[in-house]
Amino acid sequence: MDLKAYLAQQQERIEETLDEILPQSDGYTASLLEAMRYSLFAGGKRLRPILVLAACEAVGGNTESALRPACALEMIHTYSLIHDDLPAMDDDNFRRGIPTNHKVFGEASAILAGDALLTEAFVLLSRPCPELSPATQIQLVNIAACASGRGGMVGGQMVDMAAEGQESTIDTVNFIHKHKTGALICAALQMGAIIAGADKNQLRQIATFGNHAGMAFQIADDLLDIEATQEQLGKDVGSDQQRGKATYPAVVGVEEARRQATELHRDALEALASFSSAAEPLRRISAYIINRKQ
Amino acid sequence: MDLKAYLAQQQERIEETLDEILPQSDGYTASLLEAMRYSLFAGGKRLRPILVLAACEAVGGNTESALRPACALEMIHTYSLIHDDLPAMDDDNFRRGIPTNHKVFGEASAILAGDALLTEAFVLLSRPCPELSPATQIQLVNIAACASGRGGMVGGQMVDMAAEGQESTIDTVNFIHKHKTGALICAALQMGAIIAGADKNQLRQIATFGNHAGMAFQIADDLLDIEATQEQLGKDVGSDQQRGKATYPAVVGVEEARRQATELHRDALEALASFSSAAEPLRRISAYIINRKQ
Repeated sequence: MDLKAYLAQQQERIEETLDEILPQSDGYTASLLEAMRYSLFAGGKRLRPILVLAACEAVGGNTESALRPACALEMIHTYSLIHDDLPAMDDDNFRRGIPTNHKVFGEASAILAGDALLTEAFVLLSRPCPELSPATQIQLVNIAACASGRGGMVGGQMVDMAAEGQESTIDTVNFIHKHKTGALICAALQMGAIIAGADKNQLRQIATFGNHAGMAFQIADDLLDIEATQEQLGKDVGSDQQRGKATYPAVVGVEEARRQATELHRDALEALASFSSAAEPLRRISAYIINRKQ
Repeated sequence: MDLKAYLAQQQERIEETLDEILPQSDGYTASLLEAMRYSLFAGGKRLRPILVLAACEAVGGNTESALRPACALEMIHTYSLIHDDLPAMDDDNFRRGIPTNHKVFGEASAILAGDALLTEAFVLLSRPCPELSPATQIQLVNIAACASGRGGMVGGQMVDMAAEGQESTIDTVNFIHKHKTGALICAALQMGAIIAGADKNQLRQIATFGNHAGMAFQIADDLLDIEATQEQLGKDVGSDQQRGKATYPAVVGVEEARRQATELHRDALEALASFSSAAEPLRRISAYIINRKQ
């Protein structure tokens, strides 16, 4: 299969669905929608929603019914980037090569745009939907919420910030990566599998794949911060190091971090051993995750 | 009935349930939990969760199964206060007589504590729950999410901020009040009624009650900002005026605002005309809303 073409095609479906869900408006909340759309359509890779679709495909499901849940996760991811970039948090001026949300709309609007995107994700997951049973829908809400909040992404971000400038142990870095990035990636895969009607065994294997691939993704991200050029990354290079962030390369060194990412990719593939060729996109995305240049 | 005793009793049930849901911790995310609990247990009136319970009671339901959804709404309300108080928003130093969240924990933790409370509400609403069907649960998620986000509370807050220092029309004030405060109050009532298995007619009447009572609540709030003492309010008095906030008294005058609150209370009671004495708490809360001193 041609991974590049696959990613481009799924990206396009997601862009179209997001555009339908969050239309432009000229009413009272036009400026809120503008701030939400600015970051939502700022050229993200759409990795999380693509993982929802690819996991659904791997279990033999119809990806049409996975599109909206996939977009909900992209909204959660986008909200987290807007809030992470705020002056009180990472204080970033650029993201994906363009000014961050608060640089364009001001801090208050950026906070509210993030809040609204997070909430909109749950509006989307709970909308009446003929293709999914209420039992499936409520399960998707639960997975998305658990992965995003205190026990997931927000918990990881809190520990990440506290660890800044401190001497970190490998346990702390593992906690941060597992929660800040891994949880939402794993949730994406589980959601896709559930939409496709996965049995317990399949769900367990997909979750194992997700745990390994999610960790590999974050290690690759840490390495990119050191090795990529600013043009490739669209943001400042080496900013993790400057801030004394708790990263894999900082704790175990660049070579060991690279070795572990490769090992995690191998373990991820192993978890999918019993899946048919329908899981080929997932397998290829796992390889792409550790080899990407942006 | 003794309203004061009723409110105190329901308040206690809610405090207990909240404490169960969000226990103290000594793990990695202890500081996040601490910041979440600080504002959640800062002496709120618990009006929104009490409205969930009272609406459930009015329709003849078992309020035990309404407790957790009620607590979810209190989490959403608390998150909105934490974010509204931030320096980039209303920049408030005190809330309910104690320092605001960011004054104690810093801005970054306050943003994350708010994010985590909002997300935790959806964790709570989607948890496996034997007393509620998945169809009811997903309906509760949808009502809570729609009332809290772009088309509800966050949308109202965005317009509220934009209107600051501007000459506002009554339409703008109505929009702000309906969305920023009214939407969540109305959602609380609808959720309670749905948990009790309300029919379409009952649900419509409860929603009408909610629209009127919600608006009356916000007008009373505007009046309190002018008329209460600082001790009663636990925050600066007259801060709306100083900031040039779009309020009812600012647009129509104090007397007319008071007249409208009384009229809204009357309309609210009328919507409950066909309800039995089980709706007595709701009726009394509507009166309390416009006469309260804090």
